[in-house]
Amino acid sequence: MIPRVYLAGPDVFLADAVPRAEQAKAICRRYGLIGVSPLDALDEEPAAWSGLSEAARIHLRNEAHIRSCDALIANLTPFRGPSADVGTVFELGFMRALGRPVFGYATTAVPFLARSLAFLGPAATSRDGAWYDGAGMLVEAFGLSDNLMIDGAISASGGVLVTAELPPDRRWSDFSVFEDCVVQVAARLADRAA
Amino acid sequence: MIPRVYLAGPDVFLADAVPRAEQAKAICRRYGLIGVSPLDALDEEPAAWSGLSEAARIHLRNEAHIRSCDALIANLTPFRGPSADVGTVFELGFMRALGRPVFGYATTAVPFLARSLAFLGPAATSRDGAWYDGAGMLVEAFGLSDNLMIDGAISASGGVLVTAELPPDRRWSDFSVFEDCVVQVAARLADRAA
Repeated sequence: MIPRVYLAGPDVFLADAVPRAEQAKAICRRYGLIGVSPLDALDEEPAAWSGLSEAARIHLRNEAHIRSCDALIANLTPFRGPSADVGTVFELGFMRALGRPVFGYATTAVPFLARSLAFLGPAATSRDGAWYDGAGMLVEAFGLSDNLMIDGAISASGGVLVTAELPPDRRWSDFSVFEDCVVQVAARLADRAA
Repeated sequence: MIPRVYLAGPDVFLADAVPRAEQAKAICRRYGLIGVSPLDALDEEPAAWSGLSEAARIHLRNEAHIRSCDALIANLTPFRGPSADVGTVFELGFMRALGRPVFGYATTAVPFLARSLAFLGPAATSRDGAWYDGAGMLVEAFGLSDNLMIDGAISASGGVLVTAELPPDRRWSDFSVFEDCVVQVAARLADRAA
């Protein structure tokens, strides 16, 4: 069986999301994987969903796609703030709970603490070696790439988080970091199958 | 058996996180629930974790707490951006995949689209009735409280998302919206048990 890999990420919000998903799937195929996009139709959508809102159907379809996959790759490039897109991170947590390997990549290599401080700007204050935001809430400083649940889940599942610093204008268009991650996924899934 | 409810949220980053967790648990007790905080120790931590980093142990402990609970309440108040805290949303996705009910609350009632546009400021542009950010990525406009995976999961699981508009200086301190949510959780879990 060719392993199926769910491709989570805010890439679905790009104007060229559908052709981009096809490009991502082509990269997966090159490494012996079937890429599954959140934009893919289900083979058959349950009749019970017909009365639901479009948003509710998208949600249920994504959950069904994730359940049908053997692993998940999350595009964790920071999205409208210092952290990854919450929809993507929801899906990462969902797949982690299913006990299957989760992988991630980001097109910035700036650590989470530095990104958080840049986001907070002058609102960030330091006390006894720790950083706090304007509401007095601690800024995570574990030297990780994002919130510890993300890094922790990827590591505990046997996955890998690949990051590289790309120029901002290539942050959402360049496939090189994604491809590096796909290589890792293919190698790990082959190890498991062996 | 008294139902156990995992209390997810960035409240763990507050300076008074431990006494606040105790207050939240007292509210849960008042409605016949056991509140479980991410800050709680495990009854016994696996010996295999002793070599792990603090961040990795926190991650595994939180996953173990979630697995031990019957439901989850997520504090979805926007955190450092227009969306909820990603660690919280990871945990919501995790519990959703376990098939147990997930609930949420937020101390703002401003819809996700309005929050996203306020966050983006002049970078947001409108075209054919849709909104895009500075990278050309669509802004979700489903009339929901946050990313559709969050609203969708809560709804599909039989949970409830409670929001109320509190003044910014009470956004992380006031327990009233949390308590409204606990009331809903207690009622739903009683329905299920019946």
